[in-house]
Amino acid sequence: MAISPSFLPAAAAITLAVDCMGGDHGPRITLPACRAFLERHPEASLRLVGLPEALKDFSHPRAVIVPATEVVAMDDPIEIALRKKKDSSMRVAIQQVKDGSAQAAVSAGNTGALMAIARYLLKTLEGIDRPAIAPQLPNSKGGATTVLDLGANVDCDAEDLLQFAVLGSALVSALTGNESPTVGLLNVGEEAIKGSETIKKASQLLRVAAKSKDLNFYGNVEGNDIFKGTTDIVVCDGFVGNVTLKATEGVAAMIVDFLRFEYSNGLFSKFAAIVSYPVLKALKKRLDHRRYNGAALLGLRGLVFKSHGSADEVAFGYALDRAYDAARNNLLDRVRARIAHAAPLLARAESAAPVDATSLPV
Amino acid sequence: MAISPSFLPAAAAITLAVDCMGGDHGPRITLPACRAFLERHPEASLRLVGLPEALKDFSHPRAVIVPATEVVAMDDPIEIALRKKKDSSMRVAIQQVKDGSAQAAVSAGNTGALMAIARYLLKTLEGIDRPAIAPQLPNSKGGATTVLDLGANVDCDAEDLLQFAVLGSALVSALTGNESPTVGLLNVGEEAIKGSETIKKASQLLRVAAKSKDLNFYGNVEGNDIFKGTTDIVVCDGFVGNVTLKATEGVAAMIVDFLRFEYSNGLFSKFAAIVSYPVLKALKKRLDHRRYNGAALLGLRGLVFKSHGSADEVAFGYALDRAYDAARNNLLDRVRARIAHAAPLLARAESAAPVDATSLPV
Repeated sequence: MAISPSFLPAAAAITLAVDCMGGDHGPRITLPACRAFLERHPEASLRLVGLPEALKDFSHPRAVIVPATEVVAMDDPIEIALRKKKDSSMRVAIQQVKDGSAQAAVSAGNTGALMAIARYLLKTLEGIDRPAIAPQLPNSKGGATTVLDLGANVDCDAEDLLQFAVLGSALVSALTGNESPTVGLLNVGEEAIKGSETIKKASQLLRVAAKSKDLNFYGNVEGNDIFKGTTDIVVCDGFVGNVTLKATEGVAAMIVDFLRFEYSNGLFSKFAAIVSYPVLKALKKRLDHRRYNGAALLGLRGLVFKSHGSADEVAFGYALDRAYDAARNNLLDRVRARIAHAAPLLARAESAAPVDATSLPV
Repeated sequence: MAISPSFLPAAAAITLAVDCMGGDHGPRITLPACRAFLERHPEASLRLVGLPEALKDFSHPRAVIVPATEVVAMDDPIEIALRKKKDSSMRVAIQQVKDGSAQAAVSAGNTGALMAIARYLLKTLEGIDRPAIAPQLPNSKGGATTVLDLGANVDCDAEDLLQFAVLGSALVSALTGNESPTVGLLNVGEEAIKGSETIKKASQLLRVAAKSKDLNFYGNVEGNDIFKGTTDIVVCDGFVGNVTLKATEGVAAMIVDFLRFEYSNGLFSKFAAIVSYPVLKALKKRLDHRRYNGAALLGLRGLVFKSHGSADEVAFGYALDRAYDAARNNLLDRVRARIAHAAPLLARAESAAPVDATSLPV
C-alpha cells in the first residue's frame, strides 16, 4: 500500500473522539477496535463517546468515556439526527473536535447525518462551499487512488470540482508525504474538448490552478484510470463518484462469487482451489475493502473520518489509523495552507450552495 | 447468457450493411467475421461496404460489395467525418439502411462520427430527442444488463432518461422476447428522495410511465445493481454511463492482472495456475467483453450497431449477430410501438436539444 504515514518522524500526542455507537454493529466492534488501536499507538489517546451503559465495561489508561444519551440510527432522516437528537454520540464526538478535546472524530454512523452534523458544528473552511467525502480505492500500482467526492454532493459546479482538487491534494500530502500529488478530472475522454459543460469549465479552472502551482493537474482521466493509478487523486461530482464506487464493488463481488462457484464446482476444481489457496488469499487481501476503510470529510474546520457502516473490527481499526495519521500529519493545517495559496482562484461566496442533505448515502 | 434471440420461430431474410473499413483493424478482421457470420446464418445476406481494393478478394454468393471511396479515421473530428467525407464506408453503410437495401448497419468505427452520421442520415424517431448507445454488460445472474446511455449524451434531462427507458425496453424485448423487461434508474440510493434534481424528476416520470403500463419501472438502483442483474435495463446519462463502464473495465482488468502476477510468482503458484486452468479459463470467458460486443444506437429511424473499435474477429461476429437478431426480431417496429404507446408521456419537441457531438467517445 502506498500510504506510508510514518514519513513524519516525530509523532505528536493525538486524541481521537470515537462515536462508539455508530455503524451496523456499534460497541461490539468499535470497542475492540479501539483497544487494538491504543495498543498499536502507545502515544495516542481516545475519547469514547456513547451510552454509558454500553461502554461501562471498557477501561484503559489512555481512554476517557464521554457520555451521550442518544444514538443516531442508520436510517434516521437527516433532520431527526440534526434537530432532534442533540445529545447523540455522533454529535458529541464531533463536538470534542470543535472544543479542541480531540484532533479528529471517527464514526461508522449514517453518512448523511454525519456530514450534516459535522457541517453544522464545525462549519466549512473559508473558500470552500461544500465539504467532500474522500475515500481511497486500491489501484494496479499496489497503491491507493483518492477519489472525491463520493456521495456528499450530487449537483456540483466547476468551482466545487476545483475545491475538491485542492482538498484532495492536502489529504494525500498529509497521508503520504507527497507534496505534489497528481490530480485527474474524471471525464468521458482524455481530450480537453470532451465532457459536459461543467467538466469543460472545471478543466479550465484546474489548468489555471496548475499554472499558479496550486495543483499538480494531470488532465482528464477516464473511469479505468482510477484503478490504473494514473493519478494520485481523481476528482468528480458526488453522483458520479457514488455510482462508480458501487459499480466497481459490484464487479469485484461478481468476480469473487464466480471464482468461488467455479472452484467449488467438482472435485478437480476443489483440488485446484486448495493449491490456489495462497493466490486466492492474496486476491482477497488485495480486494479487501477493509484496508481502504476510513474516508475523510474534507473542507470542514475540523477533522472527521467516516467508517463504512458495516465495518468489522479490522476495518474500523483502519479508519481509526487513517484519522490518526491525518491528525498527526496536520491535515487541517495543510488544507488551510493550500486553500490560502489558492485563495485567488477559490474566490467565491462561501457556502453559497447548501448541500442537499437528503441525497447523502447512509 | 440470457440473450436467446431464437424466440421468434420464423427468421425473416435479413440483410446487414457492414462498414468493413471501420475499427482499429479494418478488413483484416471484418471480412473473416463476415464470412463466419454468413456460414452461421444461411438465410442472411451482407452488403460489404469499403474501398474496392481492400475488399476485392472477398466473394460469397450472399454478399455484395458496395464501393466507398473514403474511410473515417478513428481520430477524425466529427465535422470531418460528417461534412468532408461524404463517401465514407461508414456513411455508405448507413445509407444502405436508409435506402431499405439493408435492415441494419454495423460499424467498428469512431463512435462520435457513427452517431453523428446516423443521426444526420436517418433522423431521430418522433418523440425522441437524443439517440442513445445501449450496450449489454454481464451480470451475476449469468445474463446481461442493458445500460443506456453509454457515451452519446453527456448532459441529459429527466425527459431524456424517460426516453432511454422506453428505447431500452424495446431493445431488450427484441433481443430476449421478454415483453416487460424491468427498468432501474441509476442513483446514489434506492430511496425515491435521493439523487440530483434531474434524477428525482426522472424517477417521477418513470413512475407515471409504469402506471400507464408503458414501462416496467423497478425504481432506483445503485451502481452494484448493474452487475447483480437487479433489473434488465439500467438508465443513466451518458457521462455517468461512460465513466461507470470504464471504471468497471478497470477493476476487472486489475483483478485479472493481479491473478496473472500471483500465479506466475514462484513455482508453487505456477503449479496452482496449471491445475486452476479450467477455472481461470472460465473466468476469462465470463469477463470476455467480446461476448458483449455490439451496442445498439437507439432512437433513430433505422438500426445501427456499434462494435468496439478494437474488436477482433470473434467480437465483431458478436456485433453482427446482435444486429441480425435485432433486425429479424423487428426492433425498429418495437421501438415505434413503444413510443406510440408512450406518446402522451413523451410529448415534447422533437430534436429540441442537439447532441454535443464533440463529447462522444471514439
